[in-house]
Amino acid sequence: MSSPYAYAKANQERFLEEYQDLLRIRTISTQPRHAADVARAAEWLRAMMLDIGMTSAEVILMPQGRCPLVLGEWQGAGADAPTVLIYCHYDVQPAEVADGWVTEPFEPTIKDGRLYCRGAVDSKLHVMANLKAVESWLAADEPPKVNLKVVLEGEEESGSENINAFIARQPQRLAADIAMISDGSILAPEQPSLTYGLRGIAALEVQVNAPISDLHSGHWGGSVHNPIQALCEILARLHDETGAVAVPGFYADVDAVTAQDRALLEQVEPYLQAEWQDVVNAPAPWGEPDYSLPERLGARPTLEINGIYGGYTGAGMKTVLPASATAKITCRLVPRQNPAQVLQCLVAHIQAIAPATVSVQVRPSEPGAEAVLLDVDGIAMRAAAEAYAHAWGVQPVFERSGGSVPITFECMKVADEVVILSYGLKSGRAHGPNENVLLQNFYKGVQATIKFIEVVGEQRA
Amino acid sequence: MSSPYAYAKANQERFLEEYQDLLRIRTISTQPRHAADVARAAEWLRAMMLDIGMTSAEVILMPQGRCPLVLGEWQGAGADAPTVLIYCHYDVQPAEVADGWVTEPFEPTIKDGRLYCRGAVDSKLHVMANLKAVESWLAADEPPKVNLKVVLEGEEESGSENINAFIARQPQRLAADIAMISDGSILAPEQPSLTYGLRGIAALEVQVNAPISDLHSGHWGGSVHNPIQALCEILARLHDETGAVAVPGFYADVDAVTAQDRALLEQVEPYLQAEWQDVVNAPAPWGEPDYSLPERLGARPTLEINGIYGGYTGAGMKTVLPASATAKITCRLVPRQNPAQVLQCLVAHIQAIAPATVSVQVRPSEPGAEAVLLDVDGIAMRAAAEAYAHAWGVQPVFERSGGSVPITFECMKVADEVVILSYGLKSGRAHGPNENVLLQNFYKGVQATIKFIEVVGEQRA
Repeated sequence: MSSPYAYAKANQERFLEEYQDLLRIRTISTQPRHAADVARAAEWLRAMMLDIGMTSAEVILMPQGRCPLVLGEWQGAGADAPTVLIYCHYDVQPAEVADGWVTEPFEPTIKDGRLYCRGAVDSKLHVMANLKAVESWLAADEPPKVNLKVVLEGEEESGSENINAFIARQPQRLAADIAMISDGSILAPEQPSLTYGLRGIAALEVQVNAPISDLHSGHWGGSVHNPIQALCEILARLHDETGAVAVPGFYADVDAVTAQDRALLEQVEPYLQAEWQDVVNAPAPWGEPDYSLPERLGARPTLEINGIYGGYTGAGMKTVLPASATAKITCRLVPRQNPAQVLQCLVAHIQAIAPATVSVQVRPSEPGAEAVLLDVDGIAMRAAAEAYAHAWGVQPVFERSGGSVPITFECMKVADEVVILSYGLKSGRAHGPNENVLLQNFYKGVQATIKFIEVVGEQRA
Repeated sequence: MSSPYAYAKANQERFLEEYQDLLRIRTISTQPRHAADVARAAEWLRAMMLDIGMTSAEVILMPQGRCPLVLGEWQGAGADAPTVLIYCHYDVQPAEVADGWVTEPFEPTIKDGRLYCRGAVDSKLHVMANLKAVESWLAADEPPKVNLKVVLEGEEESGSENINAFIARQPQRLAADIAMISDGSILAPEQPSLTYGLRGIAALEVQVNAPISDLHSGHWGGSVHNPIQALCEILARLHDETGAVAVPGFYADVDAVTAQDRALLEQVEPYLQAEWQDVVNAPAPWGEPDYSLPERLGARPTLEINGIYGGYTGAGMKTVLPASATAKITCRLVPRQNPAQVLQCLVAHIQAIAPATVSVQVRPSEPGAEAVLLDVDGIAMRAAAEAYAHAWGVQPVFERSGGSVPITFECMKVADEVVILSYGLKSGRAHGPNENVLLQNFYKGVQATIKFIEVVGEQRA
């Protein structure tokens, strides 16, 4: 084999088999009962790093039995060569057939050019595309002109607490010239896009209690403020009737959308509109009326209720007046919003509107993540543009992502430049049932990372 | 044995054993997976009716495999004697340790003079107190002067659809001069009370849908009306800020509380206030400001949210924007409110306030039950007062119950007079975790029913 590109094409079938092997492991980091699965996946990944020719590979255990990092290195380009750090995460969101899956959530199923499985797009796609790109380089005649570090996180879906602490404690372990974060999605199957902005995140739970125990709703109904009702009354006051967040101070640090932003984001609007019709398809659009769809999704902060429960939720009815009701909330943040300050505003507002008839606990969930804006004109962003152009045959457009990639902010502490290479699609239904990946995106992703490594090596040489 | 009273006292221990045997059977009528348990309990009860000397006993199967009735008769008083129909229900609410039970919910546990078990107070207490009173009469030297029918229902907790249909189809099967409904609770351990009013019930579910599938809240948050938020916004508009129901037409047929009601209910207020502190103990009272606690609980209609669910409700967080959210609601009704009309008002109101950005389904749950007011001066009510005075040594006070005993309305179709004899306490936590009965109430209940049968026999003779 002469080139990494040819090697990758020749080994495509095997790469797909290995990708499916990883998908079968239930790496659900938010559920402690899957700790053994996560540990097994970490060991599997470490072994693969050594198999593909990396110099060293290590499973780095985390405090309190949390999910480990896997860190591999290849130092063959020499001490003077630049270092590229590739970050991905191998943990996934929970998934149950009952959520609406058509197939078994952890059994990879290929249909019509798509591979269905929890984690298919978020983010084992990226783990495997990058490992297989590294394998292709290390199996080629000419080695890469950059040193490589690959770090695979095991708790991106449950707060990334430990990787943040690890970076703070040992920043040299992940130090690099360029950090390439591989996660997320591009605009459309035939239109790659580079994300230059990411929203941050802040999370909290609100719990309302009133009676000391579940009660008979006939015996006591009418004499006590129903906790579900009180919670609904609180949650109904977190947005105003236009869809804007009604929490005082929430928008205090939010910059106006600039003319440059508007110009860049106008290009992606038709793609997003079409995708909204396809993926969301709600009875009507919703959101802040003065902002376009890409602005609502990328340049404006939001507050979402991710879950609610209280009282009887089984089949049939149960005439209970419940003791408590709980909601889970996350906010998506834009640059200059501080997660802790946003949480403070939320706690203060909820406490201010909490009626005296119930007891309200607000539990902020640490840590949040700040939003980031990346340099559109840096070496990393230009190498990424060439990588997409090579693999997709089309120049990428620029967008701001609605999702949070909290690690971006952390990587900015250990690398001169940070760039995000996404190979997924929003229609991949990350976090939802029937998560899937377009198989072509896996193969193109391998080619794109190979190209990215080549271009960085040439530019930094 | 000469008298039924002495027989009952002598057999107290065995009665308690048999009561516990019945409690162990998981007669959860709202959960189809317990159909075999319900069937087993029905057979157990039929055998007991024959054992205690009733003339006939029958398990009456219901359509679509629903929970059967058990009907026993004793005709020994002769064709000219009056007939007393005793109604109880043997099905129970669901119960799980996770709801907050200190003991196994279906393993009877005696502690400090109380017996803990699901169904202990609601309503196997009444099933067994009445069967054992009948046994005591049929074992005594002198037989009762009334003919007896005992009907035990198996789906009181899941809508009573089939007993209502059975009564409509074959009213003669349950025809009686006096129907004694045995269910519910008295005011305090040492203060029996007679309920002369019962609230009715109307139930519905509200489901909100927006996106066609669960979505990533980062990718799409801010562009679609979150179904949990929309549901909360709807539910928050079902009450006004004083605690009154804010549904147009809801109070249309509600009579003002009369001076006689106020006078009767003032007597029970101190008991209810003390019980509220003990059982409810919320941070502050709540409810319609112009009405006293017993009026809020018995003479005013209410709207309670019994359950809510949507999105991710497991441990940790999941950044999902859910496809749907659902709430379960019941209304307690007062005399002259028609359940169907109330449901119509609710459906109309919810549809009127439903935003166009989501799809809202309102599913009324049939049938509801009308509220009832009973004759305070009839033979049945006077016999009941004597029964309590005999067993408790105290004259009963009169109250209006917040709960619904839908069968009362049905019994009024087949009996000249209807009365409710309750042997439970509100502190028995019917429908909640750690449901329990004061053992003394079981023994007093047996004595009270014996007396009731005696007094009716004398008065109607």
